[in-house]
Amino acid sequence: MLTSAIENAWPSSTWRACHVVVAVSGGADSVAMLRALVRIHQQTRGKGQLTVAHFNHRTRAAASDDDAQWVAELARKLNLDAVVDQARAAGSLIAEEQARRARYEFLRSVAEQRGARFITTAHTQDDQVETVLMRALRGSGIDGLTGIPVVRPLGPAVTLVRPLLSISRAEVESYLERLGQDYRHDASNLQSHYTRNWVRRDLLPQIRDRLPGDPDAALLRLSEQASQWRDAIEQIAVRLAARAVQYGAGQPAPTVRIDTPQLADEPAIVIQQVARTAWRQAGWGEQAMGMTEWQRLAAAVVDDSASTFVLPGSISVRRQGTDLVLERS
Amino acid sequence: MLTSAIENAWPSSTWRACHVVVAVSGGADSVAMLRALVRIHQQTRGKGQLTVAHFNHRTRAAASDDDAQWVAELARKLNLDAVVDQARAAGSLIAEEQARRARYEFLRSVAEQRGARFITTAHTQDDQVETVLMRALRGSGIDGLTGIPVVRPLGPAVTLVRPLLSISRAEVESYLERLGQDYRHDASNLQSHYTRNWVRRDLLPQIRDRLPGDPDAALLRLSEQASQWRDAIEQIAVRLAARAVQYGAGQPAPTVRIDTPQLADEPAIVIQQVARTAWRQAGWGEQAMGMTEWQRLAAAVVDDSASTFVLPGSISVRRQGTDLVLERS
Repeated sequence: MLTSAIENAWPSSTWRACHVVVAVSGGADSVAMLRALVRIHQQTRGKGQLTVAHFNHRTRAAASDDDAQWVAELARKLNLDAVVDQARAAGSLIAEEQARRARYEFLRSVAEQRGARFITTAHTQDDQVETVLMRALRGSGIDGLTGIPVVRPLGPAVTLVRPLLSISRAEVESYLERLGQDYRHDASNLQSHYTRNWVRRDLLPQIRDRLPGDPDAALLRLSEQASQWRDAIEQIAVRLAARAVQYGAGQPAPTVRIDTPQLADEPAIVIQQVARTAWRQAGWGEQAMGMTEWQRLAAAVVDDSASTFVLPGSISVRRQGTDLVLERS
Repeated sequence: MLTSAIENAWPSSTWRACHVVVAVSGGADSVAMLRALVRIHQQTRGKGQLTVAHFNHRTRAAASDDDAQWVAELARKLNLDAVVDQARAAGSLIAEEQARRARYEFLRSVAEQRGARFITTAHTQDDQVETVLMRALRGSGIDGLTGIPVVRPLGPAVTLVRPLLSISRAEVESYLERLGQDYRHDASNLQSHYTRNWVRRDLLPQIRDRLPGDPDAALLRLSEQASQWRDAIEQIAVRLAARAVQYGAGQPAPTVRIDTPQLADEPAIVIQQVARTAWRQAGWGEQAMGMTEWQRLAAAVVDDSASTFVLPGSISVRRQGTDLVLERS
């Protein structure tokens, strides 16, 4: 049952007293998620409230408007609060990444208006498989293989949850069939996802057909393992940073001081992770730091002849004895 | 130039005084490798010797025999020693993995007969890309993403080298064209590699055509990163094992004793790696140990209520105070 799988992934005890914004495109995944959450909410006599949020990307003109109306009507039938918004520009003009950002911006603003604690989106196990494969082929590295997280804080007050992430699209469809609930075919939030559609409809079916074993399960296992490895390296780095890094008073911290001999024997990727940890704990913005910058900073930890240089965010890096001193100006 | 790329990957100073067995199927990759190694050997006035080794898998009946003759003739023209052997059974009956093993067994036996220090095979960067993608889709985990290694010791006396691993098939072909050197089309050592052929000829070309960026470079980068992560975890585990593990006298060691409190705060994958390191250093065979067995052993390190159990190779595992004691019977 879909409801019990959701209950396992995201126990109702954590949300039934809260306001939850449910993102609904009108496609099978999000309609199934909505129906299942409503059912769980009723069965557990939830004190919170569910708000349906629909973002019209306007990628398919009249059809997109129909989707929006259809979702509003569904919310009315279910006696739910609903918010429908639409993209400023017509969707075909919007790049994939921009469209994605506009949608999350909209969901976040609905959550703020309503004072909601959670936002749920209907990513399934199939989305996870596609994401892991696409990231492997796009050069996102091991970090990228960790895939879509089940839970992602969007700030102190709002958390994004994907309760269907371990549920297959086939399970979603059979749930809807049992309910006799229809949905909007092709109601994709991001029709501009040409690449993803190709991966879903063409590449993965070919791979399942030709490769021995279960490639979906293989990619999911790879993703889990990547998460374990990343968490292990992070845990080791946090422990090292607690010993080897000191922060000047203030947030953001004016200075970070790294006691380099304590890190000298560590593998390069661990030193990089210690640097990231220090950077984050200092309250400095990571956005402008890329792979190259982290590598440069890690190299300066082990290279005692390194000369002074400046990193994004006006952070100067210099040696002082055996310390590496990072200073924000 | 192919010769300078090979010189970078595998400096002639390390092999020009040695006997080298060169595996030649007759296909473009191995013929280019042979011609380039002969050229380097002559230019550096190598004192060693090159032996051409060809394994006839007999997968394509008469065509396979023609390949074998063609390679023998090429060796004759180049004034090189050559050994040609053939599979016992006709190749179509042989599973991929079995065929691969038979080929390496043959190469190793030629190296022993000739007292050779190195065996070279002609795996290219394209093979690496295919391998990484196939392993991601077959569930080999992060370890598998590390791909084909450039150098792999086959024992104390013989080392396997892949000097073309960072060279593309296109470079190989243009080198042969410049030399006016022909080769056997379709002379694959493993025609039973249906899956690999599909990945090479169908899947990867589609991916290159449809995905933005450079998927080959992305997969190679992923592979490098997986190697770095694996090496980092190994380095950390070896250091921890040196502190927390004691071995009974003898090789293979009769007992291994793990001081568990020293590992209690480590991530699970690090503990698993410490267990592997201890196992290897004890001189115990790893073959029969699978993912499940390593996880069970790692779990016993942190679970002080674990009862006695037996692992492959008749290794019993039991608690003794805060030690975990592994004993070989």
